[in-house]
Amino acid sequence: MADAATNLRLKLPLVCIILEIILIILFGVLVEYNVDTDAKHWHEELNNGSSNYDNDFYFRYPSFQDVHVMIFIGFGFLMTFLQRYGFSSVGFNFLIAAFALQWATLMQGFFHGMHGSKIHIGVESMINADFCTGSVLISFGAVLGKTSPVQLLVMAMFEVTLFSVNEFILLSVLGAKDAGGSMTIHTFGAYFGLVVARVLYRPNLSKSQHKNGSVYHSDLFAMIGTIYLWMFWPSFNSAVTAHGDDQHRTAMNTYYSLASCTLATYGFSALVSHEGKLDMVHIQNAALAGGVAVGTAGEMMLTPFGSMIVGFLAGTISVLGFKYLSPLLESKLKIQDTCGVHNLHGMPGVLGAIVGAITAAVATKDVYGDGMEDVFPDIHSGEVTAAFQGIKQAISLAVTLGMALIGGLVVGFILKLPIYGAPPDTICFEDGIYWELPGEEGAHEEMTDVRTEAADPETHKLNN
Amino acid sequence: MADAATNLRLKLPLVCIILEIILIILFGVLVEYNVDTDAKHWHEELNNGSSNYDNDFYFRYPSFQDVHVMIFIGFGFLMTFLQRYGFSSVGFNFLIAAFALQWATLMQGFFHGMHGSKIHIGVESMINADFCTGSVLISFGAVLGKTSPVQLLVMAMFEVTLFSVNEFILLSVLGAKDAGGSMTIHTFGAYFGLVVARVLYRPNLSKSQHKNGSVYHSDLFAMIGTIYLWMFWPSFNSAVTAHGDDQHRTAMNTYYSLASCTLATYGFSALVSHEGKLDMVHIQNAALAGGVAVGTAGEMMLTPFGSMIVGFLAGTISVLGFKYLSPLLESKLKIQDTCGVHNLHGMPGVLGAIVGAITAAVATKDVYGDGMEDVFPDIHSGEVTAAFQGIKQAISLAVTLGMALIGGLVVGFILKLPIYGAPPDTICFEDGIYWELPGEEGAHEEMTDVRTEAADPETHKLNN
Amino acid sequence: MADAATNLRLKLPLVCIILEIILIILFGVLVEYNVDTDAKHWHEELNNGSSNYDNDFYFRYPSFQDVHVMIFIGFGFLMTFLQRYGFSSVGFNFLIAAFALQWATLMQGFFHGMHGSKIHIGVESMINADFCTGSVLISFGAVLGKTSPVQLLVMAMFEVTLFSVNEFILLSVLGAKDAGGSMTIHTFGAYFGLVVARVLYRPNLSKSQHKNGSVYHSDLFAMIGTIYLWMFWPSFNSAVTAHGDDQHRTAMNTYYSLASCTLATYGFSALVSHEGKLDMVHIQNAALAGGVAVGTAGEMMLTPFGSMIVGFLAGTISVLGFKYLSPLLESKLKIQDTCGVHNLHGMPGVLGAIVGAITAAVATKDVYGDGMEDVFPDIHSGEVTAAFQGIKQAISLAVTLGMALIGGLVVGFILKLPIYGAPPDTICFEDGIYWELPGEEGAHEEMTDVRTEAADPETHKLNN
Repeated sequence: MADAATNLRLKLPLVCIILEIILIILFGVLVEYNVDTDAKHWHEELNNGSSNYDNDFYFRYPSFQDVHVMIFIGFGFLMTFLQRYGFSSVGFNFLIAAFALQWATLMQGFFHGMHGSKIHIGVESMINADFCTGSVLISFGAVLGKTSPVQLLVMAMFEVTLFSVNEFILLSVLGAKDAGGSMTIHTFGAYFGLVVARVLYRPNLSKSQHKNGSVYHSDLFAMIGTIYLWMFWPSFNSAVTAHGDDQHRTAMNTYYSLASCTLATYGFSALVSHEGKLDMVHIQNAALAGGVAVGTAGEMMLTPFGSMIVGFLAGTISVLGFKYLSPLLESKLKIQDTCGVHNLHGMPGVLGAIVGAITAAVATKDVYGDGMEDVFPDIHSGEVTAAFQGIKQAISLAVTLGMALIGGLVVGFILKLPIYGAPPDTICFEDGIYWELPGEEGAHEEMTDVRTEAADPETHKLNN
Repeated sequence: MADAATNLRLKLPLVCIILEIILIILFGVLVEYNVDTDAKHWHEELNNGSSNYDNDFYFRYPSFQDVHVMIFIGFGFLMTFLQRYGFSSVGFNFLIAAFALQWATLMQGFFHGMHGSKIHIGVESMINADFCTGSVLISFGAVLGKTSPVQLLVMAMFEVTLFSVNEFILLSVLGAKDAGGSMTIHTFGAYFGLVVARVLYRPNLSKSQHKNGSVYHSDLFAMIGTIYLWMFWPSFNSAVTAHGDDQHRTAMNTYYSLASCTLATYGFSALVSHEGKLDMVHIQNAALAGGVAVGTAGEMMLTPFGSMIVGFLAGTISVLGFKYLSPLLESKLKIQDTCGVHNLHGMPGVLGAIVGAITAAVATKDVYGDGMEDVFPDIHSGEVTAAFQGIKQAISLAVTLGMALIGGLVVGFILKLPIYGAPPDTICFEDGIYWELPGEEGAHEEMTDVRTEAADPETHKLNN
Repeated sequence: MADAATNLRLKLPLVCIILEIILIILFGVLVEYNVDTDAKHWHEELNNGSSNYDNDFYFRYPSFQDVHVMIFIGFGFLMTFLQRYGFSSVGFNFLIAAFALQWATLMQGFFHGMHGSKIHIGVESMINADFCTGSVLISFGAVLGKTSPVQLLVMAMFEVTLFSVNEFILLSVLGAKDAGGSMTIHTFGAYFGLVVARVLYRPNLSKSQHKNGSVYHSDLFAMIGTIYLWMFWPSFNSAVTAHGDDQHRTAMNTYYSLASCTLATYGFSALVSHEGKLDMVHIQNAALAGGVAVGTAGEMMLTPFGSMIVGFLAGTISVLGFKYLSPLLESKLKIQDTCGVHNLHGMPGVLGAIVGAITAAVATKDVYGDGMEDVFPDIHSGEVTAAFQGIKQAISLAVTLGMALIGGLVVGFILKLPIYGAPPDTICFEDGIYWELPGEEGAHEEMTDVRTEAADPETHKLNN
């Protein structure tokens, strides 16, 4: 099925092996255990009066594992909704995530984890690496089915780098808060991916249109991804917030935002669709928008009440986006957004950034007490007012959008080079181009039987 | 496929959106962060000498996430065994759970979480809300395939309310113990659902009989649900027990009860079935009965030995129930129990209640030591004897059965009103009535090919 | 489909029920709660100044649950890749794991958990029981599709016993370290299973060859297993290491080893396969070899750099093994290794043992500080030198291989007895022999329609 242009026999091995060797060398030169993972240094801490349960592992590892499930099962299976692209959805998700998390460890370490000339790593850096990977996987959703694994690895390499720069500007330079990444992860990943999809626009993609949809069981596989993302989003948003009330509150806000979002999704899905029937695309995606939209404000004193309002709005705009905006994006702006990441990550991410800015702007010492130090250290220290923190949050959204658009444009043109073995317009959304495929659901065999049986009477009659 | 009566275009949006708006308003008026989730109050605790690891988040959040997986993946996928009802099984499970957990937060808070005029919430209330939701999902199993989502939301609304009343009577008024909910969750949910199924009896359901069964891959999807329920049941039963030995012991008792139950299930399944072959229905369901049956006594000093006996009995009665009792329930009592919840939750729940009563009645200070205070505070304080605690446990079972039967009867008649868009007898167990369905497993296309190919020679011959 | 010889109507119930009754009796006689799970004794600890968060439950239970998922979902679904053996893969995995974990509790307790005449159990023994179960499931992979459940239970009984003896020799007698079980679990399980497969060699297995492969959706189910194993392997390797830096470091080393392994796997899979296409068998299996290969050294100061090198090597030899060695094993050595456990567990396990020996041999006080006591207590106490610890590690590998080969040989001949209802050569890899099967994916019905429709015009024309 694949011709020479898409044969990756040399390209993919070369890229995988060279990238991994470079990673290994850089890890050898630059990376060290942090205090909590180093045998000697941690035992010095113990000798100085710490207990083993002070080790950050016990505060964050369960959250890390939940995030890990979201990255590999959640994103991977969510994209299996395409009828003939399940191997690639799970498989390329697996490949680029395994690469991106290593590269992100280095890039994020370089920008904000250097201790002398070394990058110190532990469970928190592992979570952050997974977060950065999530952003790449969001972009993957926009170009799903139309890209080769080599192209995706190259995209991941550039996107991780730009993500780390943007994250550095937001968190370290501007002093913004964005624990669950409404801006850094979702808005950045979505708009970066959408611009890449625009640059890679395929005018003749309709030739693969019959593959660009789901079948019954592929939709059920996708629901595995959806439900895992939904369940573990509270862990995602709370994974790197401060210990104690911050992690606890963030998880709870996210839980209620998602629950509210789900009811809005079902309500509006039935309202806008044919004969009042529910649309799986909405359920699989829009029900998650509530997690995206409290990614910034979730750690703040948003209250469950506020979280539920945000979740309700997020579900609503997401369903309406799928119904009315996505077709326009494709027809007017020539953005072929396979998974609808604009509706799940783009608009809800922007909503989350705005909610975060507003919630920050109204923060008061009366509400936060001494907890202000964990949530808004700059307000606590008197360095900025709450209103100005809100402005910094808003500026962060603008910076993120700018970085995503310009970055996506440049990287899009790099990815447009005809050297990556991308599929032709006629064979998009098709596993067979990059994977050895097994027999078809036992169907070939059975089909043959059917043909034979159907033909038999025939033959018989002809013999008459 | 759907006609006007089952078109939910206005009904479902109205119900979802109105319910969610009511929930949001009530949360705004009534709900507050508890000490462990509130920035100000938690930092006051820290200032008074607490440490962040005293925050209940770290004692309960991993258990919460396991419970959450059971509710959304476990229950949701367990019910996908029906060949054409996978979207509805996972999707309606998702919808009613998202609603029920919000409503349960309010109802349970109202009955036993009020601080002044406010409901205080945190990870423990989130677990309890998920528990209450589990009860609704058990009832859902009894009416699966024969109800509309609007009907299910109405059922959830009433059932959550009655669950909270019953739970209040058991735990707060009677002082019974039921950490894993053999009574409050399983017995209540099962018998409530069975009575609703009885009231909604469909004499002509046989018209949909060809859809009321599994296919090969739908059974594999269901096994995802089974295995997750099985693995995380130790977390379920231990999620709200006291910190320390209680959580630890409950998890371990449940682990051994389930292991023992599984061997009984396989043994009896092969014994009672045709040609000694295993029946997937037994494996998917009866192997879980061991978790149900130690829901009350799991936190007590039941010992692994005792747990294994209970698990063995639970698996045995569950398999025998599927084989011999379920057909009688349908033919004699007119209860069409789609998922066999009577065998998985009903009888094992009653068994669990009895085991709990007996185990409580034989509790001694010699065995429990100072741990008596956590498990049986009323015995510890001298308020009641162990024997009387056992009697209170037995009374709790009777109360639960009464509440479930009467509640199910009343709610059943409410659900019988012809206003919810329930499916006709001819289109039960069928996703197509409420969901936009994709092409059939790529089969339509291939089928067409088959037809064409089969027809071609024909045509050819006719032309001869 | 099954004849008398494979009818398990009496055999399976007898074995399951008798084994379970024996287990229950032995638990009643031998097993007690340990301090952390006993109400009285834990409260004595609390009275002596402990806190509830000192309870081992909070250090290990999240890891336990991850391991539990690997055992039941990971191993179970990984083996569903066979097109017609999904029920057996998940279902027999479930059965033998539920048995093995109970039996392992007794065997491991007998060899290294006796307190007086009693076996004390808690979360650590639960993890160890799951570990031992993992070893049995690896062996199951080698004989998958060619064995009856009775045969598998008998194998599990013997293998758990031998595993426990080997583990006792390694950890208690020799003083080797093997927290993630490169030797005790993977090497032992793989070579034991391979020898059993050799003894059970079926010269006419080619008669079932058309069933010995995957179909599209069965490969997706298998990827659920793969991804869960991959994600939770950091928890597996760190589950029973010392609290604090040890658990933290082990998880992190495993995370990077797996990521590196994944890139090597994709690279070499494309390199060695037809037209540069990726092979699902490699992705499903070889990408996991990085977890196996740091099972011994993961808790040591291997560094992420070292872990990545090990992971890269493991992925490489695993892919090459699938491509070049497995066919030779079958044709030359008559080992029919259904799942390729030699490539996933065998060779990477040996690699892991070697890496562990080398890493131990170069351990210095300068690197480990006081942490030496947790990782290498014998070096810390001055009892042995680092070099000698390395030698002990190497001896442990040899002992493990010897135990596996001899044990597998003996058990293989026991399993060859014609009394277990094993399938005939013509019906291997087929669920229908031991399971009641539902209709075929709705296909029968639809197929019938197709036949009818295809036949109709015919009939019609004939009537003309």
